[in-house]
Amino acid sequence: MPESDDIKERARKVIARCRKLATFTEQTGCTTRTFLSPMMRDCHREISGWLAPLGAEINIDAVGNFRALYHASDPAPPRLVIGSHLDTVPDAGAFDGILGVVLGAALLEALNGDRLPFAIELVGFSEEEGVRFATPFIGSRALLGKIDDDLLNREDECGISVRAAIEQFGLDPSRIPDAALQGVPLGYLEFHIEQGPVLENLGLPLGVVEAIVGQSRLDFTFTGRANHAGTTPMHLRHDAIAGAAEWIVTVEREAQRVPGLVATVGSVHTKPGATNVIAGEAVVTLDVRHASDDTRNSAVAVLIREAGEIAARRNLTVRHRFQLSQPAVPMDPQLVSYVEESIRHVGCDPYRMVSGAGHDAMILAEKVPAAMIFLRTPGGISHTPDEEVSVEDVAKALEVGMHLLSVIADSCGIQKRK
Amino acid sequence: MPESDDIKERARKVIARCRKLATFTEQTGCTTRTFLSPMMRDCHREISGWLAPLGAEINIDAVGNFRALYHASDPAPPRLVIGSHLDTVPDAGAFDGILGVVLGAALLEALNGDRLPFAIELVGFSEEEGVRFATPFIGSRALLGKIDDDLLNREDECGISVRAAIEQFGLDPSRIPDAALQGVPLGYLEFHIEQGPVLENLGLPLGVVEAIVGQSRLDFTFTGRANHAGTTPMHLRHDAIAGAAEWIVTVEREAQRVPGLVATVGSVHTKPGATNVIAGEAVVTLDVRHASDDTRNSAVAVLIREAGEIAARRNLTVRHRFQLSQPAVPMDPQLVSYVEESIRHVGCDPYRMVSGAGHDAMILAEKVPAAMIFLRTPGGISHTPDEEVSVEDVAKALEVGMHLLSVIADSCGIQKRK
Repeated sequence: MPESDDIKERARKVIARCRKLATFTEQTGCTTRTFLSPMMRDCHREISGWLAPLGAEINIDAVGNFRALYHASDPAPPRLVIGSHLDTVPDAGAFDGILGVVLGAALLEALNGDRLPFAIELVGFSEEEGVRFATPFIGSRALLGKIDDDLLNREDECGISVRAAIEQFGLDPSRIPDAALQGVPLGYLEFHIEQGPVLENLGLPLGVVEAIVGQSRLDFTFTGRANHAGTTPMHLRHDAIAGAAEWIVTVEREAQRVPGLVATVGSVHTKPGATNVIAGEAVVTLDVRHASDDTRNSAVAVLIREAGEIAARRNLTVRHRFQLSQPAVPMDPQLVSYVEESIRHVGCDPYRMVSGAGHDAMILAEKVPAAMIFLRTPGGISHTPDEEVSVEDVAKALEVGMHLLSVIADSCGIQKRK
Repeated sequence: MPESDDIKERARKVIARCRKLATFTEQTGCTTRTFLSPMMRDCHREISGWLAPLGAEINIDAVGNFRALYHASDPAPPRLVIGSHLDTVPDAGAFDGILGVVLGAALLEALNGDRLPFAIELVGFSEEEGVRFATPFIGSRALLGKIDDDLLNREDECGISVRAAIEQFGLDPSRIPDAALQGVPLGYLEFHIEQGPVLENLGLPLGVVEAIVGQSRLDFTFTGRANHAGTTPMHLRHDAIAGAAEWIVTVEREAQRVPGLVATVGSVHTKPGATNVIAGEAVVTLDVRHASDDTRNSAVAVLIREAGEIAARRNLTVRHRFQLSQPAVPMDPQLVSYVEESIRHVGCDPYRMVSGAGHDAMILAEKVPAAMIFLRTPGGISHTPDEEVSVEDVAKALEVGMHLLSVIADSCGIQKRK
């Protein structure tokens, strides 16, 4: 194991590298790097510059994923995939996604030339955020052989299809099948900032993700009768806003009642929306997430029923529409317990948690035993330039990563050797 | 008194005339007639056509009010003013405002040439709705001598000032002082549709207005922290929408608790307003009205305090801003009791009510004993093409008006004579 000072030095380097990559942007003055944008090349070049000296075999697959293979001590070894995404939301921070790739590279460096009984493939996914084509996970879907014509024909705002974007980047769409994983890797490991306040509130640097939540997204339209705010007495109103407000309070109460449930009304639109007119319509959105699909579905059912009851009592009508219904994805219990053990090994409390956001691990998990390690996110803030991570937490993540490689090596029944 | 059939015939004529005037519009396909728009001339011409045969002295004053003086039996008599407004909101109905003028004309016709011990001035106000110059009551303010340079310099959306609009209509702004009432009239009487559902719900054709409510309009900005809807647990949120919703429920409850109070949240704006983001900001409007200024002001104070308490409990901040604070205006008790007596005389229950909307009577009341008679409004619907009144209710209003003229004549100590 490297010494603590050495680890801190590596952690500082990880952060500096993330900040440097954040300067590769398609939008001056902020960090925005979407799928196959020209500065993805600069990103690939920069990361190659770190990994080539380690003897890693580097290639860019046909959907633009950065892939570096660090060979094993054995000629036909199993493979561990470590990865995260290289693309960003508009006006992003320096760590969401990219930290997982940079940490992976630092782990390979920290091996100091050691070869393990398994190969490590480091993947920088080309697309996770869904910004350019309004559909996420293009990078990781390619590893599962899940890129179809529907997706290839999808167009961005400029009318450029995914297929054309791939060609414009200098890649060959007919080679997309080659991007798929051959056989079943040992596992998939993703380091990611938590993007939430839980670890910070617990005073913990790291968490181990045991499941990625399922999500339901809906909108609800409460309809009443627009009327004069001065001449309509309270008992003769059909006030759509008042009904929606009562329901929003119920949504919050229901989510507070069910452990682990989050339910959010993030947007309210009112019509006609004048100070002196009782609203005839209020459209509100609902986002519900939980690690258990049953819990989530039954919460959604309760909230739909409550909306109906509130509307009926107030002589309003309400209709709802599903926008998304996505099941929860459990992580691999064995790999999760290895991560837990490694976190304990470096002197931290291994907090098991649920990821409230989707990640590439969710896609990979369908085929590969997957696990995620969350890093504490100061203020729980992400997707803004204020995103931060601390040197200490990155150092702990590196230590955990190093130990985890030993644990996995042990689990292969073979000791790592020089 | 005319016979019942005769009255019904007159009522039908009133409605037909209102519908004809609704065709004088600046917007094809709907009724829109704003201050000093060219088709106000058609309106004036049409009404003059009914009143000239009665020997009324007609003129258009310098702010475009239509004024017809029906002389008394005496040479230097007191004067009763009957009026309402000729302008409309965009895409208006056929009755709001104009019904009061057409009813007044029908009352003069129903006198059948009789002269009363007082003169009657019928006024069709040129401006009440505040559409063109975003300030209401220009017509009635002129009768009180309240047109100042600030108002004359105010511009419409095309950059035309009130002064220029007056000139373009062919009137002389320097004559505006002549539009002011000379001396104190006997009273001011305004017939108007209720624009609310109260009379309909009570099964009554007419109501007598004893006060016009005071109004407070404010907006409230709840500020929390925008955050990820998936990764932020319920207990670590600063959700601006949830806080605003709790307060909106409180607003409704408070208004229901205080007799006669109406309080309305008519508009909600949320930021960033995305399904999967906890809102960092919610801006909501508040409109509070009551016949008692003390009751209104203390309700507003309660709601401001509640907003502060809800925000504090939720780690949000809230700030409020007053947009309008307008005191209540009582009608003249004597004139109100005459109206009440007249409604009873025609066999109806004289329901005393408060006007939740502002009217010209509110302006006139500062100088002139004023009263209003409300006509039942089917569905409580106004300011739309669906506005209706029934022949029966208009007939009742005409009967009440006829009797009221006798009562007022009696109160002058003189009997009306041929």
